[in-house]
Formats: sequence, structure tokens, C-alpha cells
Amino acid sequence: MKKIINDPENFVNEMIEGILKAHPQDLSTVGDDIRELVRADTPVKDKVAIATGGGSGHLPIFLGYVGKGLIDGCSVGNVFASPSAQQMYNITKKIDSGKGVLYLYGNYGGDVMNFDMAAEMAEMDDIEVKTVLVADDVASSKKGDEGRRRGVAGLFYAYKIAGARAEEGADLDEVIKVTEKAMSNTRTMGVALSPCTIPQVGKPNFEIEEDKMEIGMGIHGEPGINRGKLKTADEITETIMKAILNDGPYAAGDEVSVLVNGLGATPQEELYIVFRKVADILKDKAIKIYRSYVGEYATSMEMAGMSITVMKLDDQLKRLLDAPAYSPFFAQPKL
Amino acid sequence: MKKIINDPENFVNEMIEGILKAHPQDLSTVGDDIRELVRADTPVKDKVAIATGGGSGHLPIFLGYVGKGLIDGCSVGNVFASPSAQQMYNITKKIDSGKGVLYLYGNYGGDVMNFDMAAEMAEMDDIEVKTVLVADDVASSKKGDEGRRRGVAGLFYAYKIAGARAEEGADLDEVIKVTEKAMSNTRTMGVALSPCTIPQVGKPNFEIEEDKMEIGMGIHGEPGINRGKLKTADEITETIMKAILNDGPYAAGDEVSVLVNGLGATPQEELYIVFRKVADILKDKAIKIYRSYVGEYATSMEMAGMSITVMKLDDQLKRLLDAPAYSPFFAQPKL
Repeated sequence: MKKIINDPENFVNEMIEGILKAHPQDLSTVGDDIRELVRADTPVKDKVAIATGGGSGHLPIFLGYVGKGLIDGCSVGNVFASPSAQQMYNITKKIDSGKGVLYLYGNYGGDVMNFDMAAEMAEMDDIEVKTVLVADDVASSKKGDEGRRRGVAGLFYAYKIAGARAEEGADLDEVIKVTEKAMSNTRTMGVALSPCTIPQVGKPNFEIEEDKMEIGMGIHGEPGINRGKLKTADEITETIMKAILNDGPYAAGDEVSVLVNGLGATPQEELYIVFRKVADILKDKAIKIYRSYVGEYATSMEMAGMSITVMKLDDQLKRLLDAPAYSPFFAQPKL
Repeated sequence: MKKIINDPENFVNEMIEGILKAHPQDLSTVGDDIRELVRADTPVKDKVAIATGGGSGHLPIFLGYVGKGLIDGCSVGNVFASPSAQQMYNITKKIDSGKGVLYLYGNYGGDVMNFDMAAEMAEMDDIEVKTVLVADDVASSKKGDEGRRRGVAGLFYAYKIAGARAEEGADLDEVIKVTEKAMSNTRTMGVALSPCTIPQVGKPNFEIEEDKMEIGMGIHGEPGINRGKLKTADEITETIMKAILNDGPYAAGDEVSVLVNGLGATPQEELYIVFRKVADILKDKAIKIYRSYVGEYATSMEMAGMSITVMKLDDQLKRLLDAPAYSPFFAQPKL
């Protein structure tokens, strides 16, 4: 373990303290609990509010997408552990403007349990709460069993699309409808080259041999679908794109958005080498790339590796993808 | 070496191909040479043009700052190696709108030699060229010998300030004046925890023991000022901030901008833990943080570590820092 940290017990709180000190105009806490974070201008009048949450260690997921044109609040758990239902509920109360609250998060057991409990608590206060679960990781369960898939980098698109639609003034059902469409159009698969270390554990969460990689590994080190010799960027990209294109609703003539996401320790140079091949593969299939994102959008601390996400677009999704957005971790200016 | 690449010989060109495929609206090449990159809308009428360049392996430095409110062109060398004078000259000709060209780059021998040669070539075409060398790395040479210091993450501030002033329509001397002021107000120091590997070499560029760190190491692995046992985030931050504050023009009552920069493999979580301590130290000194940047702004591929940069501000620098900017790698929307 070679980390720039203090006492591992304080890892999450000190990180959040740093974020609040760096971005006081953008973020604030609900009350005294530093792990309940909201847009500084919340509640936003006449806007459906969006809450997320999950374990730490994935910046900019989850907290990094609290911002304008994105989401309204985030509860922050320990590293790779769910925040509590009480924290989620406190945020829900704070961000609701009367137009209802969308829970938008990744499909992990602990998070599902706690968000469901928070929703029940909120309903007793007459706050309307609905949920869209993100489950974009093709490697985590077979086709036909999509409900067991995990949420990974596709969360970025979920926040972007839902956030833009909410900002337009849509009601809760409309926000849900377009978010579900976006997610049914989205597939992700990744590759891991190295493990990461939970600060309080102090040891890597798995081992991977020096000449090996694991295709489909989850962002907490969940087993992938194939561990094998480290291949070239082009070969890895071909394998991943084949899985994505076979699984999702992509056909010649479609327009898509592509996200090549670094898991933490993989340089941007390598992500662009991967993007180059993604672009060539899609061109061969007569699928047009409308907008691209390349960088760190969903990480596993210092894990080396990357994931590729493809979202099929229509006119509505293009409009929402193009809408301006701003958080301390993600800025997309108006064109 | 565990990289997601193809033939190491193609590392730089494939990376640039990826960047051009991902951002065709933003960037283009001067001619057939993929390593001569400019803003897609260059030359910008009635604007001082700004050129930079340097070796690859530092994204978003240098190429990542070609954009609106930033710089106009960049020549790209091999990993950690200078581009050629001819490439710099070709860019100079392409970006000049008649208002002159500022060469703005880091203080490294090969780059200085080639940019000086390019300036001579451009002058024969009656293009006015002037240079501001960035040399912000406190660890690379003693006080009193600042001319031998290397340029590191302070380049980000140089591009931001010069780019904003040029966008305002200032003439070449005015752009130089404010950029020199900004750089005389800027100091950086870093720490490395791990080496990185030049793809064509295939071996780490230095060794560092599992329990050690090196304060002041350069972004190409140049020796630092102290190799010692890995300390806590707070201790490392104290050491670095002491060196920066002792060296630069910082006093109680000042306002500054702070950049905590990841070198490649260090997670954003850790950068914010460092930022937290920076904020506490500056608060104790009655120095106010006006605007903060935390993330990867100048890297060494997969090197673990970080650097801290402090720039003292006045009203003019605050205005220029706040100005909107956009490149595929850095976006700061209008407030």
C-alpha cells in the first residue's frame, strides 16, 4: 500500500473535508453530517430532485456529479460500503422542492436495501420517491438476466441525462422515462490490470499476475469473465466492443456516445489509444459517434485499467447530452 | 510494464489519432504531420497567438490546453523528448493572426533550443515571436538560481492567464507582462511515490523502494531533494508547503489560487486529503484561497504522486483566472 493518506480511519472524512474546502460555493452539507452532501443552492425550485449515493473510492462517482444540470444530493459511505438509509432520507428531505425525488444509483445489494428504506421513510413525509437502478456492466451477468448486472461508468450517462431533463422542468415520470430509455441504450465493459487497496484493510483486494489482465472485473474487484495474458490495446478493445455490441441495441446508422473511462492509474494517453480503436470499430459498423468522453469518470482508487461505455442516442438524448452541466468534477459548457 | 498499448513505437501517434477522432470539432492539424496541432478555429482574428510544445507523456500537458481562452497550438514530441524546431515553426505560421506569437513552455534544454530556432525562422517571415519560459519547480534549483528551475504544473496557470489576456485582445507585450507576473507569483513542488515507464524503453525510469517517497522529483524522474520513508499526507503537505511559502512572495492577507495536481496514478481522493491540509496551512498564515483546482493537470503517465502549486493573485489575475475556458481536457464555464 503506497498512498498519500493519514490515519486510514479518517480517509473518507478527510477527503470530504478537502472537497468542501475546495468547493464551498458549489457544495454544502445537510446538517452536521459531513457525509450528506447537496448542491449549495438546493432545493432548486420547481425541479425534480435527484439523489444518489454509494461507497467511497470511486471519484468522481458519486459525489462528483452533484451540480447544475446533474444531480442534487449524495450520501457517502465508507470505501466500497453503502451509506445508511437515514443519510439518504435526510438528503431526500433537503433536496425535494415538492416535485418529487428520483433515486438514481448503481445496482448493489447494500445500496438497494438502504435506498428502499429511505424511500419508505420519505413517503411517510409525503415526498414522492421513485427509483431507477443503473445496471450497465455487461460482464456482471448474462443477457436475459440484466437485473443482476452491476452499475459502473454508465452512471455518468444516467446522471447527465436525468439531470438535464430535470433541469428542463420535466415531471418525475418524464425524468424516469428518459433515464430508463438512456440506460436501456447503454452498455459497459471494463478490464483491470492491477488491484486497489482499501485504506483500512491495507492490502490489495485481489492479486493479478504481472503479465495478466482481467476482462470484466467489477469496480470493487468482483470477478470478471476472463483472466488472461495482457493483450494489446487493440485486442482488448476488440474483445470489449464485441461484447458490448452483441449485447446492446446497436445497429448500422445509429448514433452513439462513447465514454472511455480510466479506473484510476491508467494514463489518459492509453485511454485515447483505446478510443482510437473504438472509433475505428464503430466506423466499420457504420455507427456514428456523436459525442465522446475520455478520462476518469468512475474509478476504483488506484486500480489500473479502463472501461468502455456506449450509449445509443436519439434526438431527445442528444439534446440532453449536449445540455450544459457543471460540478466541481465535471464541466460541460454551453456550446 | 503494464500498459494498455499496441506497438510502443506507435504510442504517441496512436494517442494523437485518438484525440483527433474524439475531438474533431476542437482540434486540427496544420498539415499532414499529426504532431502539429492547433485550435480548429485558428487563426483567431486580432488575437495574440500562443504556442507551446514538449514531450509526450504528460497529458493534459501540453496538448490538452489548446482551446478557447487558453492556447492556440502545440507541437508534440516523443515521450519526454522535444518536438522539432520545424514543427514549432509550422504551428507558428498557422496560428499567427498578425498580432504576434507567444512561446510559452517549460524550461527544458531541448525545448528551449528548438523554440529559439523556430523563433528565428518565424522572424524571417516577419512574425513577431516572444517567449516566456515557465520555471515553477522550487525543488529543481535553489533560490537565487531560478533560471535553472524546471517547468511543471505551473504551466497550467501560465496557459490560463496568458490565454485569457490574449482573448481580451491585449497586445503581445501586455500578454507577456501579465504572464511574467503570474509566473513570478507561482511556485510548485511535488512528491513521487512510484516511477513511470517510457513505452519504448519498457522499464521503469528509476526505482523507488516500497516504503519510500521522493520529495521534489521532476516529472521525468529527475532527482528530488529528499528520498525518505513514506510519510503521512499531512506531513508531506507540510514539507512541500513550507518550501513553497519560504520561496515565493506569499504573506498574510494575500489571496492565492491553489492547484493540487495528480501525477497519474494517485486517486483524486488522496489529492483532496492533501488539499484539506493545504487549506489549513494557508488559513493559519491568513492567506485566503480564491480558487482551487484539484485533479490531473500535468502528469507523468502512470507515476504515483502529486504536486502542489500556489499562485498569488491580484485583481487582474483574479479576473483572468475566472475567465471562461474550454478545451477537450479542461473546461471552466462562465460563472
